[in-house]
Amino acid sequence: EPTLHDLSEPLVDHAEGQLFLNEAFKIIVEDVLCKGTDVKQKVCEWKDPDELALLLDLQLRDSGEPQGRLLQRVRDVAKYSVKTTHPHFFNQQYGGVDYHSLAGRFLSEALNTNLFTYEVAPVFVLIETEVLKALRLLVGWTEGDGLFCPGGSSSNMYAMNLARYSFFPQVKRQGLCGLPQLTVFTSKESHYSVQKGAAFLGLGLDNVIVVEVDDGGRMIPEDLEEKIKLSKSQGAVPFLVSCTAGTTVQGAFDPLDSIADVCEKHKLWMHIDAAWGGSVLFSKQHKHLMKGAERANSVSWNPHKMLVAGLQCSVLLLKDTTNLLKQCHGANASYLFQQDKFYDVNLDIGDKSVQCSRKVDCVKFWLMWKAIGSSGLEERVDKAFLHVRYLVAQMKKRDGFLLLREPQFVNVCFWFIPPSLRGKEGSADYEKRLAKVAPIIKERMMKQGTMMVGYQPLGNKVNFFRMTAFSPLISNKDMDFFLNEIERLGKDL
Amino acid sequence: EPTLHDLSEPLVDHAEGQLFLNEAFKIIVEDVLCKGTDVKQKVCEWKDPDELALLLDLQLRDSGEPQGRLLQRVRDVAKYSVKTTHPHFFNQQYGGVDYHSLAGRFLSEALNTNLFTYEVAPVFVLIETEVLKALRLLVGWTEGDGLFCPGGSSSNMYAMNLARYSFFPQVKRQGLCGLPQLTVFTSKESHYSVQKGAAFLGLGLDNVIVVEVDDGGRMIPEDLEEKIKLSKSQGAVPFLVSCTAGTTVQGAFDPLDSIADVCEKHKLWMHIDAAWGGSVLFSKQHKHLMKGAERANSVSWNPHKMLVAGLQCSVLLLKDTTNLLKQCHGANASYLFQQDKFYDVNLDIGDKSVQCSRKVDCVKFWLMWKAIGSSGLEERVDKAFLHVRYLVAQMKKRDGFLLLREPQFVNVCFWFIPPSLRGKEGSADYEKRLAKVAPIIKERMMKQGTMMVGYQPLGNKVNFFRMTAFSPLISNKDMDFFLNEIERLGKDL
Ligand SMILES: Cc1ncc(COP(=O)(O)O)c(C=O)c1O
Ligand SMILES: Cc1ncc(COP(=O)(O)O)c(C=O)c1O
Repeated sequence: EPTLHDLSEPLVDHAEGQLFLNEAFKIIVEDVLCKGTDVKQKVCEWKDPDELALLLDLQLRDSGEPQGRLLQRVRDVAKYSVKTTHPHFFNQQYGGVDYHSLAGRFLSEALNTNLFTYEVAPVFVLIETEVLKALRLLVGWTEGDGLFCPGGSSSNMYAMNLARYSFFPQVKRQGLCGLPQLTVFTSKESHYSVQKGAAFLGLGLDNVIVVEVDDGGRMIPEDLEEKIKLSKSQGAVPFLVSCTAGTTVQGAFDPLDSIADVCEKHKLWMHIDAAWGGSVLFSKQHKHLMKGAERANSVSWNPHKMLVAGLQCSVLLLKDTTNLLKQCHGANASYLFQQDKFYDVNLDIGDKSVQCSRKVDCVKFWLMWKAIGSSGLEERVDKAFLHVRYLVAQMKKRDGFLLLREPQFVNVCFWFIPPSLRGKEGSADYEKRLAKVAPIIKERMMKQGTMMVGYQPLGNKVNFFRMTAFSPLISNKDMDFFLNEIERLGKDL
Repeated sequence: EPTLHDLSEPLVDHAEGQLFLNEAFKIIVEDVLCKGTDVKQKVCEWKDPDELALLLDLQLRDSGEPQGRLLQRVRDVAKYSVKTTHPHFFNQQYGGVDYHSLAGRFLSEALNTNLFTYEVAPVFVLIETEVLKALRLLVGWTEGDGLFCPGGSSSNMYAMNLARYSFFPQVKRQGLCGLPQLTVFTSKESHYSVQKGAAFLGLGLDNVIVVEVDDGGRMIPEDLEEKIKLSKSQGAVPFLVSCTAGTTVQGAFDPLDSIADVCEKHKLWMHIDAAWGGSVLFSKQHKHLMKGAERANSVSWNPHKMLVAGLQCSVLLLKDTTNLLKQCHGANASYLFQQDKFYDVNLDIGDKSVQCSRKVDCVKFWLMWKAIGSSGLEERVDKAFLHVRYLVAQMKKRDGFLLLREPQFVNVCFWFIPPSLRGKEGSADYEKRLAKVAPIIKERMMKQGTMMVGYQPLGNKVNFFRMTAFSPLISNKDMDFFLNEIERLGKDL
C-alpha cells in the first residue's frame, strides 16, 4: 500500500528548515570558527575509530529524527573533526580560514548550480572567466584558456591529456592502441598525481620516466635531456615534461627556464605543477622562483592550498588560443549544449571539461580576492616566508633540530633529535631509532590534541617532520609554540 | 623594499571576519533561500553577458574593498544567479533544496578538510563508509566497496578504469600500448560521459560501440549481444557494458536482468550508470525499475540529482571485495599514507581515489538521511512519480501537448504544438517550424524569469521539452502553473 500523499503541498517546511539552518549556522560559528581558531582549544579530539563510530551513532535508519537531535549531530561532527582552521594545524597545505572565501562558499552552496552553461550559471561563467584571466596574467600570458578542476591531481591529468591530444589528435577517436609508446618525464620528487594520471589515462606507470633531482629536490635539466634521448633511442615518443613549482615535501622549484630550453629543443609539452607553489606569483619578492613559467604550455595551481580559498579550488591554465580544451574534451551533447540558443553559446564552457556537473569553485576565490586585493594576497605570501625565516632562525638556536636543508619555500623539513640520540650520529641503530621519533611525537600530539604536523621518509632519509607555515592566522608566537611543543613531546625520547 | 610586517600578529581579524560572515549568511537566507523558493519571485533575472559583466564589476584589483561593498557583491551574485531552488526550475536534474543537507554543506565547508586519511578526517571517513554501506545495501550487496567522486561522469570513468584493470592488470604499469583493441558497449541514449571517459582513458571514442534502443530509449539486449559478437569477430576485446538506469533525456531504464545474462555469458564487466535513476531504490513501489542491479559489478549514483543532496554528491558502488579500487588506483605515497601510523591505516581511504585532495561530499547526505530517514527519501521519490502522473493527465486534457511517450520515470518529454501548427502535421515545413518552438518559448520564459525548463532534439525527433519533476518543493499547483505558462508563452506561435 503506498502512503497517501498530499499532492497539493510541498514536502519541505521552509520555516522549520530555515530555523534549523540558523541554529546550525550558530553552532558552526561557535564550535568550528571560534573554538577551532582559538589556540587555547584543541586542534583535534582524538578517538579510536570504534569508539568514535559509537559516539557518532552512524547508522542510517528508516525514520527521521527530531531537530534537537540533529543539531546535536552537527555539534558532534564539529567536535570530533580536526580543526584545520586552527593556527596549530601544520599538517598539510590547507590550514587556516578566510572569512570572505567562506562566505563565498556558503553562497555558492546555497545557489547550487552547475558550471556548464551560461543559462544556469550566468554569474559564475563570467567570474570563472575573469579569475582565470587574472591568474594567467600573473603567469605572464595575456591570452589563453583554462578551467577550474576538482583538485590539482585532476588539473595535472587534464594537462597530460591535452599534451597527448596536441601531438596525436587521433587518440580521441582511436585510442592509444596502435600509437607508439608515449613517455612522460617528471622529477623524483614530483607529486604522485603524475603517476596516477599516467595510469588512469592508459599511458602506464612504466612510461613515467623519473628524472633525478639535486640535493634541494629540484629536477636536473641535464638528466632530463639525457633521459629524453634514451627514451627516444628505445623507440618511445616523449611528449610531456611535468615539472613542479613547489614540491609537496621539500617545497622545491624546478629550474623552469632550463627545462623550457630542453622542451623547446625536443618539442615537448611543458607542464608546470604549481599546485602548491603557484601562489608565489602574487609576490614581487618571491615570484622569481617561477621564472620561466611563461614559457610553459600549461600550469596547474591550487588556490585551496597556500591562498586558503577552501577545498576544492584548483585551476588549469593554458597558453593555448586554439580552443584545444574543447576540441580535446568536447562531446557536443545536444541535450545540454544546444546550438540554437538565444545567446552566444561560447559562454557554455562546460564542454571543455570531462565532467558534466561541475561545482562552482571560483566565486569564493573571487570574493576573497576582491576583499583583500592582489596586494593582500601578496602580503600573505610574503609574511609566510618571514614566519619560516623566523622559525628556522629559532631552530638553529635550539638543540635537537636538524634541517634537511634551508627551506626554499614555506615547507620546513627537519628531524627532531631527542636527547637520548644527540651525539650518537655514528651509532649502528641511529637511523632506525631516529625513524621512530616522528611517529611517536605525532601520536602524542594527536592524542593530546595540541598540534598537528606531518612526517614522512624521503629516499634514503628516514622519517622527518614537514611543517608548512602559511595560514593567515599564524604569528611568530605560533612558531615558538611549535618548537616548544616538539621539544616537550620528545624530551623523554 | 619588502613591506614591514608585524609578525607578532595574524593577518586575519576574527571579529571583523565573523561579522561579515554573519551578514552574508543573512543575505543568503533572504535573497537565495526565501526569495529563491518563493513562486511569486523570478527564477532568473536575465541579463546579456556584456551588461551582466558591467553590473558585476568583475575585475580583480590590487587593493581590497570595504565590507559594505563586498556585501553588495554577495547580494548581486545572488540576484543575478539562477534560482535552482525555485519550484519552477525544471531545467535540470538538480532543482530544489533540502535544509538539512544545506546545513551539512556549510558544516563541511567550515571544517575544510580532505577525505584522504583518518588523521585529518576521522568523522568523515566513518560517515563516508557508512553511507556507502547503506547505499550498497539498497543495491542488494551486503559487502563491497565504493567511493564518493566529483560527479557522475567521474564515477562512470572510475568504473571503466576498474573494469579495464580487472581484466588487464598490466595496464597500470604498461599502459594500453601493446594491448589488444578494447571495446565498451553502451546504448545510444546513454550519457555522454561514457564517451568522454573512453577518450580520456585512452580507449578512444571509436571503441565505444553504440547499442540500439527500443522506442522508449532502453538498450536492446539482442543488439548488444550481436554487437559484442561482431566486435570479437573483428579482433577486438569487449570488456565493459555500461548500462543506464534513468537516461538523461527520456528517463529510460535499460533491462538490467537481460543485460546481466549477456554480460555473464560473455564475461564482461557490467556497470550501471544510475546517476539519475538510482534513487528509485529507496522506493518499494518503483525499485523494480532497477531489477537485476545486484548482478552488476559497479553502480554510479548521484544523490545530488533526485535526492537534492546538493552539488557535488556522487558515488561509485562496487560489488568487489578484493580491494580492487586501491590496487587499481593506489600509489602508496609515503608522505601521506605512511604505514607506521598509530592507527589502522586501512582507514586512510584516499589511495582508492585518483584524486589527492578529495572534498567531503558525504556528510550533507548523511545528515539529510538522518533527518528524514529512508522513509522520508522514499516518500520524496514516490511523490515525484505522482506529480508526473498528474502532469501527464493534465496534458492529455489540454490541446497542444504531445508526449514523446508515456514517462517511465520523472522525465516528461513533450512537444508543445502552438495554435498555428495544430492540425498541420502533414505539411512540408511542419518539423522545421516545430523545431523552432521550444527555443522561442525558452527564450521568453528566461527573459521574463517565470520558469526554466530544458529542450533538445533526439535522433530524428526535433526539439522537444524535457521537464523533470522531483524537487521536494513542488506541488500539483506547480504542475498546473507549468502547463499554463507554456501555453501563455507559446499562444501566438
Ligand atoms: C605539488 C603538488 N601537486 C599536486 C597536488 C595535488 O593537488 P590536489 O590535492 O588538489 O589533487 C599536490 C597536493 O598536495 C601537490 O603538493
Ligand atoms: C544518466 C546520467 N549519467 C551521468 C551523468 C553525469 O553526472 P554528473 O553530471 O554528476 O557528472 C548524468 C548527468 O546528467 C546523467 O543524467
